[in-house]
Amino acid sequence: MKPETIPGVDETGAQRLDVRVRRDGSVSEAQDWLADEVPVALIFNGISHAVMLATPSDLEDFALGFGLTEGLLARADELYGVDVQPDPAGVRIEMEVSSACFARLKDKRRSMAGRTGCGLCGTESLEQVEPPLRPLAPCTTPLSPPAIAAALRAMPSHQALQQRTGATHAAAWCSLAGDVLLVREDVGRHNALDKLVGAMVEAGIDPRDGFCCITSRASVEMVRKAVAIGITALVAVSAPTSRAVATARRAGLALAGFARRDDLVLYSDADRFR
Amino acid sequence: MKPETIPGVDETGAQRLDVRVRRDGSVSEAQDWLADEVPVALIFNGISHAVMLATPSDLEDFALGFGLTEGLLARADELYGVDVQPDPAGVRIEMEVSSACFARLKDKRRSMAGRTGCGLCGTESLEQVEPPLRPLAPCTTPLSPPAIAAALRAMPSHQALQQRTGATHAAAWCSLAGDVLLVREDVGRHNALDKLVGAMVEAGIDPRDGFCCITSRASVEMVRKAVAIGITALVAVSAPTSRAVATARRAGLALAGFARRDDLVLYSDADRFR
Repeated sequence: MKPETIPGVDETGAQRLDVRVRRDGSVSEAQDWLADEVPVALIFNGISHAVMLATPSDLEDFALGFGLTEGLLARADELYGVDVQPDPAGVRIEMEVSSACFARLKDKRRSMAGRTGCGLCGTESLEQVEPPLRPLAPCTTPLSPPAIAAALRAMPSHQALQQRTGATHAAAWCSLAGDVLLVREDVGRHNALDKLVGAMVEAGIDPRDGFCCITSRASVEMVRKAVAIGITALVAVSAPTSRAVATARRAGLALAGFARRDDLVLYSDADRFR
Repeated sequence: MKPETIPGVDETGAQRLDVRVRRDGSVSEAQDWLADEVPVALIFNGISHAVMLATPSDLEDFALGFGLTEGLLARADELYGVDVQPDPAGVRIEMEVSSACFARLKDKRRSMAGRTGCGLCGTESLEQVEPPLRPLAPCTTPLSPPAIAAALRAMPSHQALQQRTGATHAAAWCSLAGDVLLVREDVGRHNALDKLVGAMVEAGIDPRDGFCCITSRASVEMVRKAVAIGITALVAVSAPTSRAVATARRAGLALAGFARRDDLVLYSDADRFR
């Protein structure tokens, strides 16, 4: 389902609304472009697993990326097909998955019987929050600060929805030379990263061969998602949390924050930024 | 549990870490203050309902606010007691609640049996995402743009954790004259609002007698939480989503976004801003 098939929504997923603007003390009628968020149900072999509020674009990428970063899909080829269907209450993403994936999902769901999850993917007990995370294989590829600065300068021109609405986060995959190769946007920063991961895997990109830039803060969930699919360097425009830094250090992820113009704060694996 | 009882964490909840800073082309060793996020389990009469990643401050407020804005508590006096306990894996908030609240929770959990939730509080089907929201009683109290501007100017001095870390959102309750009366901070914007709601109810504040300022974007969940406890005006520093605007318009919530210096964009109930 493409955004332009939703009435009143343009090809970037933005929606136009009549608003009133107060600027420099005077008030005027205006039109404003807003980013949408819709309930998106992730359905595996007919069973609804989760509903996320997400920007209704690149939902095939989202399905693949979410499945991989949440450990439901062990490999991309366990996802046989994705069908994105509008629904009166939102969007249904119908995924056809391997029996191995479906068994994994049923195991996860069985352990949750009668429980609800909140704020984390189906997580109800403290111990479930941080399941073991396999550390990355050591990576010593240098990360050039000028290349990172070049990617940061180029990113806004790739953020079509953000340019229109000022409301969305982006996650970008960048070459070691600083070229922005892929960008995905969403009102939710985790969703933007999941969409990017799906697009990277679809494009056959080696996650060791570049770095990921995010326009948001780096939370522990962002770090875990990156590590889960083998990204070795994460650059955030805003602050990390202390738990994100601790997780990055344990996993061997190079993590930089407050990436603005040529400046960076190096939180983990600082020797790679040289 | 106060933040200063956690080793290495100061009274605002910030944690000091050794980092390397690259600025203007030169690199130096430095110390940086980071905001923490910890898994927080919300436990009702011994039953764990949800785990959130949250900043470990004002957790009693969080418990009360979350219970109210998620509709688990119909009234504050259904919460008999809150006990915040450190746990090796995070923090446990043990709540003692009325039998009416517990029955409501069990009903909610029964309807979820064998399901997981993700991204929304225990929500697994599209229809559960937006349960009926009772519209606000009509409110015509004027909202003065100069008072809003005054509150926005004053807010940073109340954001102790943000000042230290640059990593946290805040939600503030402000009088109609623009005085900032209460502020709560968290790495998650929903958590900041839930903490504020808990503090407001604890302080006996009438949610019709002022406005709420948030330093973040206004998502549909922020709008729903505000309406659920009777807040009639929400001012966001950043953008709303189109779904947030539609929900605010249906519920009769006055909603402004891009609130910066003296400027505002009025998305819903614009006539109140005068």
